[in-house]
Amino acid sequence: MKKLINTPERLVQDALAGLEAAHADLLCVSYDPDIVVRVDAPVQKKVGIVSGGGSGHEPLHGGFVGRGMLDAACPGPIFTSPVPDQILAATHAVDGGAGVLYIVKNYSGDVMNFEIAAELAQAEGLEVTTVLINDDVAIKDSLNTAGRRGVGSTIVAEKLAGAAAEEGQPLAEVARICAQANAMGRSIGIALTSGTVPALGRPTFELGDDELEFGIGIHGEPGRQRMPMMPVSELVALMAEALLADLPFSHGDRVLAMVNGMGATPQIELYAVYAELDRYLKAAGIQIDRRLVGNLITSLDMAGCSITLVRLDDEMLRLWDAPVCTPALRWGC
Amino acid sequence: MKKLINTPERLVQDALAGLEAAHADLLCVSYDPDIVVRVDAPVQKKVGIVSGGGSGHEPLHGGFVGRGMLDAACPGPIFTSPVPDQILAATHAVDGGAGVLYIVKNYSGDVMNFEIAAELAQAEGLEVTTVLINDDVAIKDSLNTAGRRGVGSTIVAEKLAGAAAEEGQPLAEVARICAQANAMGRSIGIALTSGTVPALGRPTFELGDDELEFGIGIHGEPGRQRMPMMPVSELVALMAEALLADLPFSHGDRVLAMVNGMGATPQIELYAVYAELDRYLKAAGIQIDRRLVGNLITSLDMAGCSITLVRLDDEMLRLWDAPVCTPALRWGC
Repeated sequence: MKKLINTPERLVQDALAGLEAAHADLLCVSYDPDIVVRVDAPVQKKVGIVSGGGSGHEPLHGGFVGRGMLDAACPGPIFTSPVPDQILAATHAVDGGAGVLYIVKNYSGDVMNFEIAAELAQAEGLEVTTVLINDDVAIKDSLNTAGRRGVGSTIVAEKLAGAAAEEGQPLAEVARICAQANAMGRSIGIALTSGTVPALGRPTFELGDDELEFGIGIHGEPGRQRMPMMPVSELVALMAEALLADLPFSHGDRVLAMVNGMGATPQIELYAVYAELDRYLKAAGIQIDRRLVGNLITSLDMAGCSITLVRLDDEMLRLWDAPVCTPALRWGC
Repeated sequence: MKKLINTPERLVQDALAGLEAAHADLLCVSYDPDIVVRVDAPVQKKVGIVSGGGSGHEPLHGGFVGRGMLDAACPGPIFTSPVPDQILAATHAVDGGAGVLYIVKNYSGDVMNFEIAAELAQAEGLEVTTVLINDDVAIKDSLNTAGRRGVGSTIVAEKLAGAAAEEGQPLAEVARICAQANAMGRSIGIALTSGTVPALGRPTFELGDDELEFGIGIHGEPGRQRMPMMPVSELVALMAEALLADLPFSHGDRVLAMVNGMGATPQIELYAVYAELDRYLKAAGIQIDRRLVGNLITSLDMAGCSITLVRLDDEMLRLWDAPVCTPALRWGC
């Protein structure tokens, strides 16, 4: 294992220190418990938005803290859920009197710990609502998930909820919009290589020299099947078919399309993926109204990509276009 | 070799198609010769800015085309210079009557082909000025370079020149500012793994399981020396020492600091690098006034990073903060 780290034990905190040093205008970091908080939190009378999960998926979630998106992120250890204390501390840090929304990817540990934190916060009289993200069409259940896993739509859910909160919408509305992003979103991922968890020191799984894993999870969980390598046009067609069949998306739909790198896939390949996706969706009569191409929800140094499609309506489009000012997503500011 | 491509021969054009499809609001792509051009070019009475070089370094250069930065980029084949015809076509596309600036990384092929294009353009009566970027402190000459290689400062030079052009400054001034970014900028890179050129199908070089290459070039050219792996704090100290000693940078300087990923290094590691750089420069009394952390000038799927420091003055700071609206760098729009 070769990584730009000091020790596996220090990596998460070192990276948080770097995030804060680089973006002190947007966010600040507290340690023990570790939380990333928008620099001007709590914003009075605005719904506070908290997300989090295991580290190793950067820029998710700390890179999306800032005006127009998350008020706080709770980074757990690599691929490990944050603890309730962390989530409760984040809740206190962002509560401006209008309630707090938890955006939780559907993994058992995350779900449990956000639930405990919500109960603790509610016992203190705080208003907390949780939206689960479960957009991964690859598989239904897995070792660490009941139901579908939460992946790429998380970013869209965080952006739209963040914009709604910034507009001053009440908690129920912010939660409704967040849930809608999840309901209208579908994702599928593939891996060419495994990432390496620093504390483990070796790849999580092995893939042959001519193999890919179709339906990979962001922690290296198995997907639907192993397949031989194929041209990106064929691969994207298989991925898009899996997505379109699921919602289903159909002719005339307008979507946000996200091509996401898993951490070790260079941009030239991600744009080759996007080119194929664009061709495929055009042929299917589906209009890409907005798009993101880049490393957004990663799996350490895994090579591979995921595609997320979110069906858009006018309200979602307006909220997507609203200003956002975070380390990883920025426009209108 | 496992890559998300159709064929090695098609990769550059496929990725360009993806870039255009994703960012049609900012740029358009022409083929044969391949050029990426700002969507509203030529901008009348504005200095046109053209850069380019081999592909495989994305987002450089196509990802920096847009308002406030490049008017056009000329992408050659992977790690191969663009041809004079391409550069001349870009020149015609961006000439708004105020002259054209070429920003050229110092590699023999690029230098030669931009020179030929400049002569052809000048023979047509166009005003063209060239600024060479040669900021890599690793080594003085190499197989494909006379003098120092051009790397990370290119991005700063493109941004500052782009802002100056947008302000309506004349060609000589835009070129002066561009040259100043290069004169005040120094870079050093390291590799943990080699990238794989698609047409070659195997890594350009081999590194042992516990080795890194200090002073790597962005085409996998050898650096200063092979070293055993070390904690990122020690590695960043060595890199920073090499940079500080060279300009030299000294106590009281204000700098722009860039931590760049080589393509396959995840963001969590890049922020760990930034944290160490921040600590090191603070201890040296050097103030980081602006920074970039991310994949900016890559080497296909190489794992590793580079650090660029550019000494700033007030004018450079103002130009850096001016709005920029490109796929890879965006603020104020």
